[in-house]
Amino acid sequence: MARFIKKISNTIGLEPGALVYVGEKKTEHVRISIIDYDQDKFTQKYIDNIEDCFLLRDTKTVSWINIDGIHDTALIEKIGNHFNIHHLFMADIVNTSQRPKFEDAENYMFLILKMLYFDEKENDIKCEQVSLIVGQNFVISFQETEGDVFDILRNRIKMAKGKIRKMGADYLVYSIIDALVDNYFVILEKVGENIESMEDDLINEPTPKSVQTIQDLKRDIIFLRKTIWPLREVINGLEKTESKLIKKTTAVYLRDIYNHTIQIIDTIESFRDTVSGTLDIYLSSVSNRMNEVMKVLTIIATIFIPLTFVAGIYGMNFNTAISPLNMPELNWRYGYVFAWIIMISIVVGMVTYFKRKKWF
Amino acid sequence: MARFIKKISNTIGLEPGALVYVGEKKTEHVRISIIDYDQDKFTQKYIDNIEDCFLLRDTKTVSWINIDGIHDTALIEKIGNHFNIHHLFMADIVNTSQRPKFEDAENYMFLILKMLYFDEKENDIKCEQVSLIVGQNFVISFQETEGDVFDILRNRIKMAKGKIRKMGADYLVYSIIDALVDNYFVILEKVGENIESMEDDLINEPTPKSVQTIQDLKRDIIFLRKTIWPLREVINGLEKTESKLIKKTTAVYLRDIYNHTIQIIDTIESFRDTVSGTLDIYLSSVSNRMNEVMKVLTIIATIFIPLTFVAGIYGMNFNTAISPLNMPELNWRYGYVFAWIIMISIVVGMVTYFKRKKWF
Amino acid sequence: MARFIKKISNTIGLEPGALVYVGEKKTEHVRISIIDYDQDKFTQKYIDNIEDCFLLRDTKTVSWINIDGIHDTALIEKIGNHFNIHHLFMADIVNTSQRPKFEDAENYMFLILKMLYFDEKENDIKCEQVSLIVGQNFVISFQETEGDVFDILRNRIKMAKGKIRKMGADYLVYSIIDALVDNYFVILEKVGENIESMEDDLINEPTPKSVQTIQDLKRDIIFLRKTIWPLREVINGLEKTESKLIKKTTAVYLRDIYNHTIQIIDTIESFRDTVSGTLDIYLSSVSNRMNEVMKVLTIIATIFIPLTFVAGIYGMNFNTAISPLNMPELNWRYGYVFAWIIMISIVVGMVTYFKRKKWF
Amino acid sequence: MARFIKKISNTIGLEPGALVYVGEKKTEHVRISIIDYDQDKFTQKYIDNIEDCFLLRDTKTVSWINIDGIHDTALIEKIGNHFNIHHLFMADIVNTSQRPKFEDAENYMFLILKMLYFDEKENDIKCEQVSLIVGQNFVISFQETEGDVFDILRNRIKMAKGKIRKMGADYLVYSIIDALVDNYFVILEKVGENIESMEDDLINEPTPKSVQTIQDLKRDIIFLRKTIWPLREVINGLEKTESKLIKKTTAVYLRDIYNHTIQIIDTIESFRDTVSGTLDIYLSSVSNRMNEVMKVLTIIATIFIPLTFVAGIYGMNFNTAISPLNMPELNWRYGYVFAWIIMISIVVGMVTYFKRKKWF
Amino acid sequence: MARFIKKISNTIGLEPGALVYVGEKKTEHVRISIIDYDQDKFTQKYIDNIEDCFLLRDTKTVSWINIDGIHDTALIEKIGNHFNIHHLFMADIVNTSQRPKFEDAENYMFLILKMLYFDEKENDIKCEQVSLIVGQNFVISFQETEGDVFDILRNRIKMAKGKIRKMGADYLVYSIIDALVDNYFVILEKVGENIESMEDDLINEPTPKSVQTIQDLKRDIIFLRKTIWPLREVINGLEKTESKLIKKTTAVYLRDIYNHTIQIIDTIESFRDTVSGTLDIYLSSVSNRMNEVMKVLTIIATIFIPLTFVAGIYGMNFNTAISPLNMPELNWRYGYVFAWIIMISIVVGMVTYFKRKKWF
Repeated sequence: MARFIKKISNTIGLEPGALVYVGEKKTEHVRISIIDYDQDKFTQKYIDNIEDCFLLRDTKTVSWINIDGIHDTALIEKIGNHFNIHHLFMADIVNTSQRPKFEDAENYMFLILKMLYFDEKENDIKCEQVSLIVGQNFVISFQETEGDVFDILRNRIKMAKGKIRKMGADYLVYSIIDALVDNYFVILEKVGENIESMEDDLINEPTPKSVQTIQDLKRDIIFLRKTIWPLREVINGLEKTESKLIKKTTAVYLRDIYNHTIQIIDTIESFRDTVSGTLDIYLSSVSNRMNEVMKVLTIIATIFIPLTFVAGIYGMNFNTAISPLNMPELNWRYGYVFAWIIMISIVVGMVTYFKRKKWF
Repeated sequence: MARFIKKISNTIGLEPGALVYVGEKKTEHVRISIIDYDQDKFTQKYIDNIEDCFLLRDTKTVSWINIDGIHDTALIEKIGNHFNIHHLFMADIVNTSQRPKFEDAENYMFLILKMLYFDEKENDIKCEQVSLIVGQNFVISFQETEGDVFDILRNRIKMAKGKIRKMGADYLVYSIIDALVDNYFVILEKVGENIESMEDDLINEPTPKSVQTIQDLKRDIIFLRKTIWPLREVINGLEKTESKLIKKTTAVYLRDIYNHTIQIIDTIESFRDTVSGTLDIYLSSVSNRMNEVMKVLTIIATIFIPLTFVAGIYGMNFNTAISPLNMPELNWRYGYVFAWIIMISIVVGMVTYFKRKKWF
Repeated sequence: MARFIKKISNTIGLEPGALVYVGEKKTEHVRISIIDYDQDKFTQKYIDNIEDCFLLRDTKTVSWINIDGIHDTALIEKIGNHFNIHHLFMADIVNTSQRPKFEDAENYMFLILKMLYFDEKENDIKCEQVSLIVGQNFVISFQETEGDVFDILRNRIKMAKGKIRKMGADYLVYSIIDALVDNYFVILEKVGENIESMEDDLINEPTPKSVQTIQDLKRDIIFLRKTIWPLREVINGLEKTESKLIKKTTAVYLRDIYNHTIQIIDTIESFRDTVSGTLDIYLSSVSNRMNEVMKVLTIIATIFIPLTFVAGIYGMNFNTAISPLNMPELNWRYGYVFAWIIMISIVVGMVTYFKRKKWF
Repeated sequence: MARFIKKISNTIGLEPGALVYVGEKKTEHVRISIIDYDQDKFTQKYIDNIEDCFLLRDTKTVSWINIDGIHDTALIEKIGNHFNIHHLFMADIVNTSQRPKFEDAENYMFLILKMLYFDEKENDIKCEQVSLIVGQNFVISFQETEGDVFDILRNRIKMAKGKIRKMGADYLVYSIIDALVDNYFVILEKVGENIESMEDDLINEPTPKSVQTIQDLKRDIIFLRKTIWPLREVINGLEKTESKLIKKTTAVYLRDIYNHTIQIIDTIESFRDTVSGTLDIYLSSVSNRMNEVMKVLTIIATIFIPLTFVAGIYGMNFNTAISPLNMPELNWRYGYVFAWIIMISIVVGMVTYFKRKKWF
Repeated sequence: MARFIKKISNTIGLEPGALVYVGEKKTEHVRISIIDYDQDKFTQKYIDNIEDCFLLRDTKTVSWINIDGIHDTALIEKIGNHFNIHHLFMADIVNTSQRPKFEDAENYMFLILKMLYFDEKENDIKCEQVSLIVGQNFVISFQETEGDVFDILRNRIKMAKGKIRKMGADYLVYSIIDALVDNYFVILEKVGENIESMEDDLINEPTPKSVQTIQDLKRDIIFLRKTIWPLREVINGLEKTESKLIKKTTAVYLRDIYNHTIQIIDTIESFRDTVSGTLDIYLSSVSNRMNEVMKVLTIIATIFIPLTFVAGIYGMNFNTAISPLNMPELNWRYGYVFAWIIMISIVVGMVTYFKRKKWF
């Protein structure tokens, strides 16, 4: 459940907009990295004092300030104050249980996004909140912990690959979202593989554990749905915004990731439909095996119970001496043979019956 | 069912707008408390005569009049008359089966909200109706009983923490709704924990009672959904209203709680999907155990029934003296050994068969 | 099914707008009652000739003409002609299989509503069609049979309780609808109680009949849904209409019943979700009992079948005289004791096995 | 499946608008009938050459040209050319797999509708496509085969019943659709009866065939839904059209059939919900009977297996002569009585146990 | 799963708009074919250098440039550069995992469509991406591999059948989409046949494999839904576009394929509903057979177990010599007959009981 609802009871009653970190303390140290570029220049460095980056707000170059670690609320507050961000948004940044959203303030835009990655060790999808503040010439990104999916993007900026160095902060935002969405496809691939291997297991050797696996997959899909669905509105909001921070030429790129998001949601729905059908396979296979067990029991029992009865008859101790009516068979010459003939007839009859019923 | 529909048959046929209390009489005495503040002043007191607070309507300070206990319809009527509230709204206040709603009258706004709390004793979610009348400089709140989730808010006003003392009645309304919505998260956490512990039980030791627990959780979730879903429209109405009672600067706060509400609804939907899958786990585990019981029976029966038959054969009393055809085995030197060999062969054959079927 | 579709095959092919009564002839005699009032005057009487009420059309007092019994199509036609009602609407009045609807003609409004009541004898929800024609100063209501939910309303008019005597025909229409909707709550309470008692039965003593009860409740809920759902549009149409027949001050009352209708629909949905889960409780309880039956069988059979085998062994008649290899146990001093020891060991072994499996 | 998708592979790749008949050749001969009327005149005749009716296009009387049989594509093409119909619409007429639709060309309107009738022989709902071309003073209708639901309508025109002779082609169109929709109610009644009789069978004597019946009914309902649902849009389109071919006074009639269509769809949904619940009744009744079978087996087996064991004990052949420890009971005076007492005790114990478990 | 999500992890992190082929390399060689026509002229040829077709952009004839094989990204890029296509669209062309879409650039339109065909060998629906670039006088189509559904269309152009030679590029686009959509009907027919044959199998001889077949069909339907559903928006976009590239007269054709698409989606939904019910048939048939197996076991066991007990009784060895109380029956004259009478009575009783229970 932890994935669906975070422990936020400690924030109850606090003043709205109060900065209270919600989440596990994922990183020890807060790391601040700066990438500053225009068509000709490129600088990348780590800084210790957040104040060092405040000058970048007013330069003409595009600046990407990235904060890894958001538990240091004092630091976050400093940034908020300097860049003049609404305190409610600052509170959202440090509350990692937020829903993806897009807010259009007058001089800046605020986005909450989700970065997903697959934790191979725990065989689980992990989720990290990424918040973006987008100004005229800068983007500030907040992550819960070090390590992200943006390394290739950073490299592309550094190498001046493609058009990114010629474009503004809006294109940088687009590139960041694009990197996140691209990564969703990787998660989907992984989930798709898990579904496939689960289905193979189901067909080859269904075990009670399969139900647990199906339920886990279902929950993964519910989680993905809940996380990715609101992204549609976020990107739609970004596309439809009248803010001057988004140039017209960026619209076609935003529509592109919008289409990708729809495609992801479509795939999640297909997964959902597929997985919900697999339990039926499992249950019907359990049913079938039960049926088979029952058949074996029934065949053995219905053949041998009458035989045992026949044997029981001739095991009775009626006094044959008193009257010829008392079990004369016992004294017949072919009595034993006769008993066997009866028993074999029963077997043949039963087997024929079962054959006709197609139980063999 | 009591949670889903309240006994209102006694109000049938009454004139619309007639004040009839619907609900259990949750509190004996009606308690009226007043908080009156502006940036510099703060007063908090309890009064006995409702008339004592009527002066506050026209002062410039923000006044929060809180009524605990709504069964005293005469009192409610007095307030309605003095503050000039539509009699239909007054009837809604005392009818605790109302749906959350927002009504925009010309000079005031009327809101019905729901306060949820978890009753640890009965392990149940309880619901209390909170109605708000919002005027230019005052907020009147009606609760069914003493005790609420607003103590921290009152304290914040008293301590002048945050900006609340600098803001007007609209910010107070926002703060009240925010306190309610924050509390929903606590309920969700509790429900989330219950789902988790139920799932653990299901996996470790499923019992028939589990189905009841699942059904109870489902009903809790249906109840939460029914209670919280309309809140979206309420807050949306509040945000979109053209009433002068809501200042523009409050809009961003309202959107914030709107987002929280969506997040809560999302979480409820996730819970719903999760819980609806757990019954499958239970049913398939019951199926599996049945299967196992059947296998034990089948193995024992199919091994011993043929053996018993063999023993039965040699318990027959055919007269061996009459003819050598009658059960010659009984007089063989190794007859008994021979019988055991037959029987052991049957056991080995059967066990091999079951091994190949993977029943062990 | 009769509730879901009425026998109307006899109307097939008739001219559209032809007056053909569809429904059981619920009342023998057609009763026409008139209530005529303004702030000062009040008259209530029964008339025999419908023509006697035609004068009321043009008086300034508010007139409520109520017709109990709609099978007399000639009478209905007279009214239609006099009040100049479209013949299609007249046909709708006598066809009791209509869906609730609101039609806004130029000089009058036409409404079809449904009156529900609970038939205690047949333990079933009955439905009666109520049609309203609303003009400037008059309301004509058509009911299938005598007896309705409007007595308290009539009394309120007579006693001049509340504001009804001061208001016009639109407020009368509102009051009529309000009486109908109030009555829906009574039906819901009844259904709620039935659900509750069914659930108690399910938990205490589930029987095959429970499934039938669940299915009956489901059908009741489907029926309520089908009947009440269109009412939303009716009231919405009434609220949004631009007809001069509805005064602006009535809007707030209409919104009030609109809210009640939504609340009723919400409750029906909650009932639906609740009931749909109860079948799972039943099925899993059946499953559990089957499981228990199987366990008893398995325990008894797997304990005694091996024992019987042992007894069978020593019941064999091998000739002990021929060879000491033939059943020497029979001649042992402690042979019988030895047999009992074997058998008791089997019992202990089995019981231990079942204990470990937690079958006891 | 034939009902859900028709074999149209032979039309693949053809030029759009090519006239290719899709459907079974339901009628041998193409029959053309003409009804021509105004307030004073009425002519009805069958013609052999389609050209004979071309003059009617420009007369002032209302003409209804009805074509039974649409496999003669040359004939259809002639009509299309003369009345100047878009070739795509002509192609739709002969392709009987079309969805109901409404197209508003400038000088005429084109409608595709579905006529349903119940085939008592095959106990199945059959569907015939009816296409209408509506011009200023004429309506051309195309049917797959002779025999339809319009005879009463034709008679009404002939007898000048109602207002039809006074109205134009738009009222004729309305009357045709009304006849079709009226007929849907007959189908619904039939389906309703089938559901009812299936439910009675289920309760009285559920057989494996019931599942097939339920599935057939489900498919009927899916088919009705698919066929009737698009009619809403058709009638809505007709009502909302700005074409001069529809007079304003006809709007109220169209809304009337619109309401009927909604009512039919509502009823179909109710049927759907009802039928989907019946499988649960069946499955739970199968479960119950299985349970009962198991109980009988268990009671008999658990009573007699221990008894048989006791009998087996005293059937053992231990040599009582060797030692008094060997089966002394055999030589007791009351040994046999003792054995019976044991056995009767077992029976009483078991029966008590089952009684307490409420298995009897 | 491969059908639902393609392996695109290798494109992660690349610059948006980078041309990276996603898909299996379905064709070895890239084949470029050109059809160039107007009302009088017709040329069809294969070219080796893409540059050869660049001149066609500015001729007045309609040119259809078709590329079979899209893995040669250099080639694709050349085309993109020459025709001045946005690099994002070029990237979409080579990424075969795209969702159907329609983009309206200023001077051209871009469409992604899906071509489906049934692979008889693998009994599977295959999907190929077809991208279209539509300019003033040219259409460029990109396919993954040689072989398509357009041969009849090409022939129609060559033979100047119908009006295609008289129309422009927009009609060619329509004809291409029409060919694709027509082909969907073929797929639906195939799926319909598969559903039918699966249902026949289910009724005649249900096997555990049936569940797998049902699940496969479900997945096919999910796949069709996912693939065809977005086509609605594509065609709608095309119809609603204000681009000058689509002439007004083409709108009626587009609406025609729009209707076909709706019809296809309707049919898919019907299939879905039908298939989802078939599992119930299977499960209930498994249930029924289990029930029958149980009945056979129960009948045999409950008849013979008591009989065996009776035989066991008279197989006991109580010493009849010691006391006349010890098994006197053994020495009765009619003892054996008496035993048989008891046993036959048991059989008759049991059989009567089962007959009354209707187990035979």
